[in-house]
Amino acid sequence: MTHRAYNFSAGPAILPEPVLKQVQQDVWDIADSGIGIMEHSHRGPVFDQIVNETIADCRELAGIPDHYHILFLQGGASSQFFMIPMNFLKSGVTADYLHTGAWSKKAIKEAKLFGEVNIASSSEDENFTYIPSMEEMKFSANPEYVHMTSNNTIAGTEYGEIPQIPGDSPLMCDASSDIFSRPIDISRFGMVYAGAQKNLGPAGVTLVIIRDDLLEKGSDQLPTMLQYRTHSSKNSMFNTPPAMGIYVMGLVFKWIKSMGGLEAMAAHNQKKAAIIYDYLDNSDFFRGTAREDSRSLMNITFRGPNEDLEKQFIAESAKQGLKTLKGHRSVGGMRASIYNAFPIEGCQALVDFMKQFEMENR
Amino acid sequence: MTHRAYNFSAGPAILPEPVLKQVQQDVWDIADSGIGIMEHSHRGPVFDQIVNETIADCRELAGIPDHYHILFLQGGASSQFFMIPMNFLKSGVTADYLHTGAWSKKAIKEAKLFGEVNIASSSEDENFTYIPSMEEMKFSANPEYVHMTSNNTIAGTEYGEIPQIPGDSPLMCDASSDIFSRPIDISRFGMVYAGAQKNLGPAGVTLVIIRDDLLEKGSDQLPTMLQYRTHSSKNSMFNTPPAMGIYVMGLVFKWIKSMGGLEAMAAHNQKKAAIIYDYLDNSDFFRGTAREDSRSLMNITFRGPNEDLEKQFIAESAKQGLKTLKGHRSVGGMRASIYNAFPIEGCQALVDFMKQFEMENR
Repeated sequence: MTHRAYNFSAGPAILPEPVLKQVQQDVWDIADSGIGIMEHSHRGPVFDQIVNETIADCRELAGIPDHYHILFLQGGASSQFFMIPMNFLKSGVTADYLHTGAWSKKAIKEAKLFGEVNIASSSEDENFTYIPSMEEMKFSANPEYVHMTSNNTIAGTEYGEIPQIPGDSPLMCDASSDIFSRPIDISRFGMVYAGAQKNLGPAGVTLVIIRDDLLEKGSDQLPTMLQYRTHSSKNSMFNTPPAMGIYVMGLVFKWIKSMGGLEAMAAHNQKKAAIIYDYLDNSDFFRGTAREDSRSLMNITFRGPNEDLEKQFIAESAKQGLKTLKGHRSVGGMRASIYNAFPIEGCQALVDFMKQFEMENR
Repeated sequence: MTHRAYNFSAGPAILPEPVLKQVQQDVWDIADSGIGIMEHSHRGPVFDQIVNETIADCRELAGIPDHYHILFLQGGASSQFFMIPMNFLKSGVTADYLHTGAWSKKAIKEAKLFGEVNIASSSEDENFTYIPSMEEMKFSANPEYVHMTSNNTIAGTEYGEIPQIPGDSPLMCDASSDIFSRPIDISRFGMVYAGAQKNLGPAGVTLVIIRDDLLEKGSDQLPTMLQYRTHSSKNSMFNTPPAMGIYVMGLVFKWIKSMGGLEAMAAHNQKKAAIIYDYLDNSDFFRGTAREDSRSLMNITFRGPNEDLEKQFIAESAKQGLKTLKGHRSVGGMRASIYNAFPIEGCQALVDFMKQFEMENR
């Protein structure tokens, strides 16, 4: 067992070490079957149990009501960006989008291929460094649905609460980067989806939690793979599912349960983020880039005094085992992604290093 | 290290043991980075090297010409069933399909959503137990493309040679279940695609080898994720790719190279299949179900004297560590899937067990 680094990657991202140790065993032989997890037929009893337990644990963790289906799809959030409007939008029909960054921008682009898009709110004026308030949202009269991005990895912002939607339009939420980092009231949403590679597992599987009436409502004129009902009617096994990803997600769910569930995760994540934000708030060398009321607990974005010092900071921190602190290429600066599995010791180690760097370079 | 079974699963299927041992190490820490393979950013140098080596090894193994791109997509062959016609077909335009089983049937169903389908040949009359000859193929005047399934896992059939296509229509091949089991002349195809979970790696990544003119030709009015050019222009990293799957595929490519490449694979696969087919040809208790000239080297389908004895055979063989010999639910009987990674000792063990079972139950 070699030494593991503090991995601040924005995704794919750090996974819990007990999960990795279980994977090491199970890729050779899972459940005494003599067959590794990647080699099991998805039609056999071993994988069947994995899928069903993963769904049950997911439902239990988030308190997902019975009238929602839990699906495991492929193609990442990027595929949900088009699948949602492809299923629910059409020419002359309007969907409202809450525009909070690069990811909602991509979602909006795909929606415009199918119908009308009303940007109900946008923080583009301030380079997406904040989450618009409810008062700033201008919904259309009767949107077919409303789409939001709960956490924005690039700008480091996150909704503090779920926006109130007018009427009974379903709210569709890209929760890729903060799902299960805190309790979530699924009943407020029509659909919640998340690429796994931040809080849930490896890249290559997308968790989709969808209300049953939407399964019925989606167009039935689409390719079979692009209809949600195809996957719900076959327990996500219409075709060969991303089995390894579902299995790891299942282990992560069991790990979250062992840690005390979503309430405990939220408390732990608040503590972790506070260590870094408190330091940033008291530094006149480094500064956080997100507006205080909109800060993400998952992705902490910050800048140094100038780009040369930022470069130096990123290089030197990596040498100390604080890895992938470079900000997204579109905004520069630094970013510490501290998802569920990221240890609190790593947050303290980062602050210790920042202090030292500030002292040496001010 | 517990004892491993002989795993005859049709997919997800057996992987080479040296690959699994490498995975066990790398999920904890790959390339002394202090970060496991599932946790690395797809924008970082470790994963970048994996993708580029995987592409280079793939190109070398199959002698793929420079005017083809190698892509790693998601959604399995089932997604290619619709992506191909969505990109290349439209109302009033005809594509020719060679219909050889359940998988081509699904491909045909999706194509009909977009344009006209001409079934150029079909073996449905004999329950898909044979591959129609060139003489039996009735191509349309100028098909936009021709689609084939090189190996049929359910019926246990496989093309002996690539059909000659009239004119310059591109030939699109679903090679999910026999890719890289033998040399392949890519220049005869417009596109070759394969879900990884039989000969190449775990479920969740699809290898797509596509000729550059088709990248240009595909519709540019589609959702971003459904255009092949999106993925070719970004080296399969437009969005977060199925990183673990690509990595395992890369290990499998290196394993195939270490075994002597595709020629050596073909020789080995012929030897393996011959052990079982020779026994079947000389048994009056068991019988192969595919026509002799159409037999698959990957999936050997056979029947016993009656369904009760088949049930008993499947149950008893599993107890002997010969696992997942049950045939596909749509056809019944038995199926031994012996992909690249399946060891020759397992083929002999199966025949030994069949002999014993025949002796005890005739």
